[in-house]
Amino acid sequence: MKQKFKSVQIFTIVFVVLAFAKAVQAQSIERIEPPNWWAGMEHSAVEFMMYHKDIASYETIVSDLPVLKVRKTENPNYVFVTLDTQNQDPGNYQITLTKGPLDVLNKTIELKKRADKSKLRKGFDSSDVIYLLMPDRFANGDPSNDSVEGLSEKADREFKGGRHGGDIQGIIDNIDYIHDLGATAVWSTPLLEDNDQRYSYHTYAQSDVYKIDPRYGSNNDYKRLADELHKKDMKLIMDYVTNHWGATHWMMRDLPSKTWIHQFDDNAGKNYPVAGYANSSYRQTTQMDPNVSDNDMKYAEKGWFVSTMPDLNQSDPLVLNYLIQNSLWWIEYAGLDGFRVDTYSYNEKEGIAKWTKAIMNEYPYFNIVGETWLHDQAQIAYWQKDSPVGAIQNFNSGCPSVMDFTLHDAIMTVFNEDAQGWDKGMIKVYENFVNDFLYSDIDNILVFAGNHDTNRINGNALLNGNLEKYKLAMTLIMTVRGIPQIYYGDEIGMGGNRDTDGDGDIRRDFPGGWDGDENNAFDKPTKLQKGYQDFTRKLLNYRKSKPVIHTGKFTQFVPENNCYVYFRHNDDEKIMVVINNNPQKMTLDLSRFREMLHSSSTGKEIISDRTIVIDETLNVRGKSSMIIELD
Amino acid sequence: MKQKFKSVQIFTIVFVVLAFAKAVQAQSIERIEPPNWWAGMEHSAVEFMMYHKDIASYETIVSDLPVLKVRKTENPNYVFVTLDTQNQDPGNYQITLTKGPLDVLNKTIELKKRADKSKLRKGFDSSDVIYLLMPDRFANGDPSNDSVEGLSEKADREFKGGRHGGDIQGIIDNIDYIHDLGATAVWSTPLLEDNDQRYSYHTYAQSDVYKIDPRYGSNNDYKRLADELHKKDMKLIMDYVTNHWGATHWMMRDLPSKTWIHQFDDNAGKNYPVAGYANSSYRQTTQMDPNVSDNDMKYAEKGWFVSTMPDLNQSDPLVLNYLIQNSLWWIEYAGLDGFRVDTYSYNEKEGIAKWTKAIMNEYPYFNIVGETWLHDQAQIAYWQKDSPVGAIQNFNSGCPSVMDFTLHDAIMTVFNEDAQGWDKGMIKVYENFVNDFLYSDIDNILVFAGNHDTNRINGNALLNGNLEKYKLAMTLIMTVRGIPQIYYGDEIGMGGNRDTDGDGDIRRDFPGGWDGDENNAFDKPTKLQKGYQDFTRKLLNYRKSKPVIHTGKFTQFVPENNCYVYFRHNDDEKIMVVINNNPQKMTLDLSRFREMLHSSSTGKEIISDRTIVIDETLNVRGKSSMIIELD
Repeated sequence: MKQKFKSVQIFTIVFVVLAFAKAVQAQSIERIEPPNWWAGMEHSAVEFMMYHKDIASYETIVSDLPVLKVRKTENPNYVFVTLDTQNQDPGNYQITLTKGPLDVLNKTIELKKRADKSKLRKGFDSSDVIYLLMPDRFANGDPSNDSVEGLSEKADREFKGGRHGGDIQGIIDNIDYIHDLGATAVWSTPLLEDNDQRYSYHTYAQSDVYKIDPRYGSNNDYKRLADELHKKDMKLIMDYVTNHWGATHWMMRDLPSKTWIHQFDDNAGKNYPVAGYANSSYRQTTQMDPNVSDNDMKYAEKGWFVSTMPDLNQSDPLVLNYLIQNSLWWIEYAGLDGFRVDTYSYNEKEGIAKWTKAIMNEYPYFNIVGETWLHDQAQIAYWQKDSPVGAIQNFNSGCPSVMDFTLHDAIMTVFNEDAQGWDKGMIKVYENFVNDFLYSDIDNILVFAGNHDTNRINGNALLNGNLEKYKLAMTLIMTVRGIPQIYYGDEIGMGGNRDTDGDGDIRRDFPGGWDGDENNAFDKPTKLQKGYQDFTRKLLNYRKSKPVIHTGKFTQFVPENNCYVYFRHNDDEKIMVVINNNPQKMTLDLSRFREMLHSSSTGKEIISDRTIVIDETLNVRGKSSMIIELD
Repeated sequence: MKQKFKSVQIFTIVFVVLAFAKAVQAQSIERIEPPNWWAGMEHSAVEFMMYHKDIASYETIVSDLPVLKVRKTENPNYVFVTLDTQNQDPGNYQITLTKGPLDVLNKTIELKKRADKSKLRKGFDSSDVIYLLMPDRFANGDPSNDSVEGLSEKADREFKGGRHGGDIQGIIDNIDYIHDLGATAVWSTPLLEDNDQRYSYHTYAQSDVYKIDPRYGSNNDYKRLADELHKKDMKLIMDYVTNHWGATHWMMRDLPSKTWIHQFDDNAGKNYPVAGYANSSYRQTTQMDPNVSDNDMKYAEKGWFVSTMPDLNQSDPLVLNYLIQNSLWWIEYAGLDGFRVDTYSYNEKEGIAKWTKAIMNEYPYFNIVGETWLHDQAQIAYWQKDSPVGAIQNFNSGCPSVMDFTLHDAIMTVFNEDAQGWDKGMIKVYENFVNDFLYSDIDNILVFAGNHDTNRINGNALLNGNLEKYKLAMTLIMTVRGIPQIYYGDEIGMGGNRDTDGDGDIRRDFPGGWDGDENNAFDKPTKLQKGYQDFTRKLLNYRKSKPVIHTGKFTQFVPENNCYVYFRHNDDEKIMVVINNNPQKMTLDLSRFREMLHSSSTGKEIISDRTIVIDETLNVRGKSSMIIELD
């Protein structure tokens, strides 16, 4: 603790009580972020960003909480004041800034009481199944907030790229549905305010990161969502964006400093939306390329994701700290169970590692999954906490979980590959798991058949509404190592084609989420939807109580004739999974699997509820899967 | 040293001089391997395999060299006697085995004098260009040995899969040609005796590993080849096979032990060619798969490459030591500069690591390149000495060099991809180098556009005789990091299609290598051949004197419009390479490369011998490359 105080001494800080300050009429500081804090946080030296016209010219700061540091930027409208909340009781604390005898600014900062065992919250893990939804497209629980004053984009359900009105209340209304489906965690794409003119429904171009977008509800609604989920033993995962904000973010109109965002001198003359835009090359691999040029590094890492999303500069300590505190604030405020971090591998490497470690330092059992959209296991594994691959470059992101995008790459094609072959069909899936040794924590890896940025698994670009193929994909996702994630609508066979019809098409409204929807897949699914739903429900609910699937060992066998067999096993249980991706019926010679079958003589097949005799051979229908609990 | 003697004490060894032994008529031991050794080797405890009818029943061993150990197997026709050659002078040493008063076996073992600085021999490295040839198909220097008595397969030049008569003399006769081409090292596919009935021309199914196949020449011819190469400052790389021998190997008729080769009980009844054949699954990835089943591991690693190649069991210490000594013997005997190890990653992991380390221990500056035919950089890097990837599984092969098969994968397609795209064309090549960080020694990695097992780069499955595309591929191979290897005939545009016409078609006879060949590409190439040859010669000879290409830093830029730019640079020199894989002329904006160009104002373009002005832009013809030495 003494170390923290040490760094203060380089600043000139006045700790005197200006008695007369109370006598003059004080103005409230326009904006303080974070708007409050909590007593007893690990992160107790809180850097409050204070925004007010000419606030930097105020000479003295008087604070009920010890001032540890004051940082100013070239913009006189900001000061960053670090206050020490350590060993402070919950309550209200005053901070006052004065300039001369009459100019007084002040604000009350509340230190709230933390929820019980807040620090020890347990993040999502491989015992969970995550249900990913886009709130604008899931369910419209409160039509009154579809369009609101002060935010540009109004609801337009006819426009695929428009806002459709879904909201937090819609999610809350359907928690029972998600719970009944067997999912145990909800990852909603972002809900913070996004005041973009168009496409704000995806909400990755945020304009205020301390505020839920009113078109989704209020901050309190978000907290209520977490509370309602927790009541059902379910978890809430926030989709957090560290890499960029929206160009309409309030701060972009009056940047604290030129270095707050990445700006490109060569484009400084172009004034859209703030000076200095250059697009990202999206070449995330520059992050590990030992042969990278400075130029490529710059454009990949510091280029903007799109022109409407200024790229945050995490190597600016003010920015980094702002992001850390904002993240901690949301975890503590809403009672979150995890983060999914958008464009994780686009961030400045050292910056995002510091951010991640700060979160995990505060909540050691929390979980964070980084979006690591790469096509090579070494490159994905690179980003996982304590990665032996990252260690080659002395890099440790601190990020507990990453996404198995290479498995997704395989899933995109294999179930349409009927033929066997050296590297075709299920072999691709098998080969993905060969490289599991590159990961530092193979159970903490997200497995999925699709998300809001990829083609729909059941869409015509992929499985084209073939329920049998869907069953194969889901059997895989739900029984291999890792944390399965499904994408809302997959469980009713929802289609969509990103390649031909754009993002909006893979983000269709969930039928029944809007009053007057003809089809209500929540309550009255069509027969086809029900086929998908029943299978999904059965599988997810089965998985829920199976530690052997959550954390058991995984042993695989080279697929033969496009039929893939693997086992999950621990000291207590043993499950044999057969995925016959061949359209023909297969008769498997079980002698190959004897090392796993041991003396098992029967098994219970979960999908069909049949009892299976484990003999010399096993018959498996074409394009079908089996999950056999061995005796 | 004391430790070595310690282990001896568990054997009963008689060190007495049996005076009367000389009085009886002694038989010469039928076979001793190695047939000789050298004084002053690091590997001084030499385990001589002695083969003779009932030799195991001989009770006493008398030896001029101290006997350190005697090992016997279940086959009475073998004993393995370890003799201590340490501190012994060159000369002849007797060994005598006796049974009773009259049965005497003996043999003279010669300890030769080592060549000067033998231990310090420097293996091939990135300053070399390797010329890979198949001796049967390169040149027939001695038609008298095309067919020989005692070896089954006779010459048949009409049969694509037959022996065509090429030999060591043919290589020696054309060293000037290879030297003139600019190659500095020769890797010949195997030359040891292969007595297979058919397809013995590839010579990977060896029947005697201490003997050059007489159809290629003699052991002495092989040594002469090395000597002749050395006279021109060139190197000889032996293609060594640790994984298997041929089914016609003399030992297979009378195996020292059941464990000498991998045998499968389930096939023990099938008696071809020796009991216990099962084929390899070729799934080399089982070697690192943490989820591997025992069954898959067994069939991948212990299965035979083909039924005519029994798989050697390197975990049998006798086998391992036999292979180590045989390898050391050839290095020392012929004066080799390197090994290329066939099917390196199919070998038993721990066994091949011990073998490799034993060689490198004897010759610390030698080089060994393992055939690592995998399609993932992490998996290839895994096999390199001190690999951080191998270290994840506490594995260290000790093998200094591996093969960049993923670059080869890219080369197979990119030069036919005219279009740009996210992951098309030169991007694939660029992406290969991103993962360079996974390798422990990136300069010691073989780069190649093809070999005797792949499609011909100029064949109709790949570049289809397009000289301009060949130039692009060669520019790449000859200027990126690593050790370039070309395949005989590539330099004259030789075609061939493995996919449609089999192995024989990519192993055609080099025109001019046979008396009476109408076309002699050595001396009188056709105009088309000359086009290939001139370009290759120029490029290779240029590379020869350029340390900046051998070991300089490598900095690459993301390809734009299918045009790839990279630099090789060190403190002294800087080379800019441009590979425009786009059929259109490109005008490159050089400002992107300023960090590398610095203040260079001119450059010398090597291919065209033009002087280039380094200005704001650079024009590059469609489908052309430039190698620019910057001032």
